[in-house]
Amino acid sequence: MRVLGVDPGLTRCGIGVVEGVAGRPLRMLGVGVVRSPADSEIADRLVLIERGIEEWLDAHRPECVAVERVFSQHNVRTVMGTAQASAVAMLCAARRGLPVALHTPSEVKAAITGSGRADKAQVGAMVTRLLRLDAPPKPADAADALALAICHIWRAPAVNRLQRAVAAHRTTKGRLP
Amino acid sequence: MRVLGVDPGLTRCGIGVVEGVAGRPLRMLGVGVVRSPADSEIADRLVLIERGIEEWLDAHRPECVAVERVFSQHNVRTVMGTAQASAVAMLCAARRGLPVALHTPSEVKAAITGSGRADKAQVGAMVTRLLRLDAPPKPADAADALALAICHIWRAPAVNRLQRAVAAHRTTKGRLP
Repeated sequence: MRVLGVDPGLTRCGIGVVEGVAGRPLRMLGVGVVRSPADSEIADRLVLIERGIEEWLDAHRPECVAVERVFSQHNVRTVMGTAQASAVAMLCAARRGLPVALHTPSEVKAAITGSGRADKAQVGAMVTRLLRLDAPPKPADAADALALAICHIWRAPAVNRLQRAVAAHRTTKGRLP
Repeated sequence: MRVLGVDPGLTRCGIGVVEGVAGRPLRMLGVGVVRSPADSEIADRLVLIERGIEEWLDAHRPECVAVERVFSQHNVRTVMGTAQASAVAMLCAARRGLPVALHTPSEVKAAITGSGRADKAQVGAMVTRLLRLDAPPKPADAADALALAICHIWRAPAVNRLQRAVAAHRTTKGRLP
């Protein structure tokens, strides 16, 4: 499975592409950041983010896109930009018919480090180890995007089983009067 | 000036197209709502919103798109969807090279009714009168989109003067050591 992870942001949108299956060594295919200037109009920034993500999708042809699920409990200004950048990432993926998976920051941390409250350095260290890199990817947004992709590869089997169970339950319920 | 106003939302995204200049009677060219099913995946909903807005832009070829500026002071769940729908609207406009203007709900209310704290009914009544309609447009999201477009037509001259003044000031500052 080839997954493109997106750590959404307007100033720095982290992108990481990982290939592999749960239980086997993973391979990093690419990592980087799509940027937009903080002093540009928001609409123009979204166009730059879209263009950048499209280039990554064209270059790596992932089967799935994993995006960080945004909560609005954080800084108000930041969260709006994050929500808008994540919308662009989801739109780019869904427009191509690619499945989009959302994972929360604590799901990602728990999957990668065993603790939902791990810090950035810990996540970076585990990403470096899991992908057998020489050094943690920088900036942190790029490492977080790789962590998202890894988290998705590892969680996908469980999430799929859950979705099948829910679908089966719904079908059963639908048959009853 | 032909303006397409967008009252962003995932379930109902209000759209209103108004033509005119400040100080003259205005003309409504179209009003409606782009919908996406609440039980669909968020990524698929954003694709539907994008497709709907593109159709409106194709049909009416506005010179400018006015979008409601989203704040995160409201309901957390709603505001994320609103931010994401507004991102799609801004993206669609900016991708075509159309200028995007953001107005806050209170700027719109103040422009249309004279009070930044006017209620929905008051805004609907003024939109009906200003556009010489037989009845207030429904749902409220559609009326709000028209109000945004009207607000933009009326505020644009003042905003343009302000932007020119800021630009001139920056140029002057830039010339100094």
